Amino acid sequence: MSMSLQAIHKNQPLVHCITNYVVANFTANGLLAVGASPVMADAIEEAGEMAAQSSALLLNLGTLNERTVASMKEAGFSANKHHTPVVLDPVGVGATKFRIETARQLLYLLKIDVIRCNIGELAALAGADWTSKGVDSGNGHIDVAATAKQLANHYQSIVIVTGEQDVITDGERVEFVTGGHEKVTKMTGSGCLLSAFCAAVLANSKEPFNDLQTLLNEYKQASANSVAAIGTFHTNFLNELELLAEGRR
Amino acid sequence: MSMSLQAIHKNQPLVHCITNYVVANFTANGLLAVGASPVMADAIEEAGEMAAQSSALLLNLGTLNERTVASMKEAGFSANKHHTPVVLDPVGVGATKFRIETARQLLYLLKIDVIRCNIGELAALAGADWTSKGVDSGNGHIDVAATAKQLANHYQSIVIVTGEQDVITDGERVEFVTGGHEKVTKMTGSGCLLSAFCAAVLANSKEPFNDLQTLLNEYKQASANSVAAIGTFHTNFLNELELLAEGRR
Amino acid sequence: MSMSLQAIHKNQPLVHCITNYVVANFTANGLLAVGASPVMADAIEEAGEMAAQSSALLLNLGTLNERTVASMKEAGFSANKHHTPVVLDPVGVGATKFRIETARQLLYLLKIDVIRCNIGELAALAGADWTSKGVDSGNGHIDVAATAKQLANHYQSIVIVTGEQDVITDGERVEFVTGGHEKVTKMTGSGCLLSAFCAAVLANSKEPFNDLQTLLNEYKQASANSVAAIGTFHTNFLNELELLAEGRR
Repeated sequence: MSMSLQAIHKNQPLVHCITNYVVANFTANGLLAVGASPVMADAIEEAGEMAAQSSALLLNLGTLNERTVASMKEAGFSANKHHTPVVLDPVGVGATKFRIETARQLLYLLKIDVIRCNIGELAALAGADWTSKGVDSGNGHIDVAATAKQLANHYQSIVIVTGEQDVITDGERVEFVTGGHEKVTKMTGSGCLLSAFCAAVLANSKEPFNDLQTLLNEYKQASANSVAAIGTFHTNFLNELELLAEGRR
Repeated sequence: MSMSLQAIHKNQPLVHCITNYVVANFTANGLLAVGASPVMADAIEEAGEMAAQSSALLLNLGTLNERTVASMKEAGFSANKHHTPVVLDPVGVGATKFRIETARQLLYLLKIDVIRCNIGELAALAGADWTSKGVDSGNGHIDVAATAKQLANHYQSIVIVTGEQDVITDGERVEFVTGGHEKVTKMTGSGCLLSAFCAAVLANSKEPFNDLQTLLNEYKQASANSVAAIGTFHTNFLNELELLAEGRR
Repeated sequence: MSMSLQAIHKNQPLVHCITNYVVANFTANGLLAVGASPVMADAIEEAGEMAAQSSALLLNLGTLNERTVASMKEAGFSANKHHTPVVLDPVGVGATKFRIETARQLLYLLKIDVIRCNIGELAALAGADWTSKGVDSGNGHIDVAATAKQLANHYQSIVIVTGEQDVITDGERVEFVTGGHEKVTKMTGSGCLLSAFCAAVLANSKEPFNDLQTLLNEYKQASANSVAAIGTFHTNFLNELELLAEGRR
């Protein structure tokens, strides 16, 4: 049943991640656990060259700065030129002007295949009324599915909004994914790793929407299977991802 | 009994951390384990704005550079302006001129509520005779309580010096906290995470001195409860922090 | 039997690491597990001063950028001046021009005692025909022992090429180390940590070649002893390293 993680395991995509230093280790270990090859490279001198040889590109705004934003653009241009899929994770985009401006620039300059965010980040990207809380979801009321659909149409991207109930939409279809366990939100980088997995799935997908929906299901399954005190949860989660990817769950 | 971690769990403070990339992941996971919301943001373009909306600010010198030091100042000014508590962790301050000069600048420019350090760092800040060893304590002989008291008075801060016996002083009162287990020193970032917890406690504290003293006790309790081979210790420690914060220990 | 890790445990060397942010935490925890003292410091303002007081220096190209490359040179000059051993880990050197040029510059400017790499990185440094895959080994055919020997002679370094079978050579002697378990390649930073251990061994070694060969054996032993699902493997691996260093395996 765990077809998307198994596909990653089979295809072993090279995923170029320009991501934040908080979750870089966890992202690399998560990608390795499911059989992908992570490569982190954020210097302007090599960002384009690295993206050109990769199977997919992840741009994550978690600890962005002027230098890494420039590298994200360079890598994104290169990925677009080589028809390499690009995933944007607009971490904490509602928190500061710098984040929202950077996200909008990237979305304007680049063809982004998937935007993976939480509800607060969705609200910020859509200009909706919302109170953000750092890189967490925050509080407010929006129609998640309708807003995500609008965003997907505007940027011609698949939009994935994760939470207690995940929403995935390409602007026409809208699907919901439930299950999982809230414990996963107590592990930093759980959303960031999912974004990296989206990139890994896109690297070899013929039906991106379906394969990403399957991935969301599998990711929720991994968190549900891992429930324990939080330190043990970390360990269990990597174990579960590996087992799912190897077809042993 | 574990009142300070339980208070964090209840208040869920947003803690803005400008910290080193060695411990950023562990710090985020530790804060999440006890129910706080970490946000790491070190770009000059957003440091002030992020600090303004946070409940507390942590400045950690672990892997400082010119760019992040500028952001620390910006975030610190913003925190001071908004009466947001600021914790300074002067990692390895005795090791290089750049570190001691940066620490002194921050202490001169900003109102720092708590300085959390080890004995070697205390000695360096106080200009005492001491042989530092990188970011470890190093060797020498000082009267820790007297030196900490002096520093607390000089900077009008609470000073916490951790070690086999912790010392906490506001320049008048001096308290000692014993217990814990030395194994905790074999886990990188154990001091850094404690500094982040100090920030999280200050976010909602009416009696900072008492609440921080309680925190020191709880942190030692967590390390004593976690004793095992070092890999297992890491897992246990996060488990214990969560259990203490949830009132289950 | 685990004499090199035990020697680290006894000597407690201070290892200055300029390494990538993906593995910085794991490297610090690994060094601490075996009793060494890690210090990460990559600011140009302090790199030379930190290297001068350290027992060994590790230069790792994993997430290099213009700023950290300048600091690597500064730290390297200082280490050379103070006769402090230097280890180079040319992560992903075959992937981009920036990496290979940086590695060649460092090898030209500095006396490097040990180069620790995988086969793909060896091929890149030797200018051999090879298809790299990010920071992984990639594919191609070279005579590993002969190429490593040539490189060792060219740079007057000990060259260690790790893989299913490790090769160590000083340009004359060539030794092979087998054992271990491929699971270790699914844990990010396993090679990077080994490079840091090489630095820690060199800090106090009278017979570097033999002591490093012993280290390679011990490292393979730790991975073989740790086999489990990947999350559990991480925990086991740190446990095993500590047990080996304490002479309890």
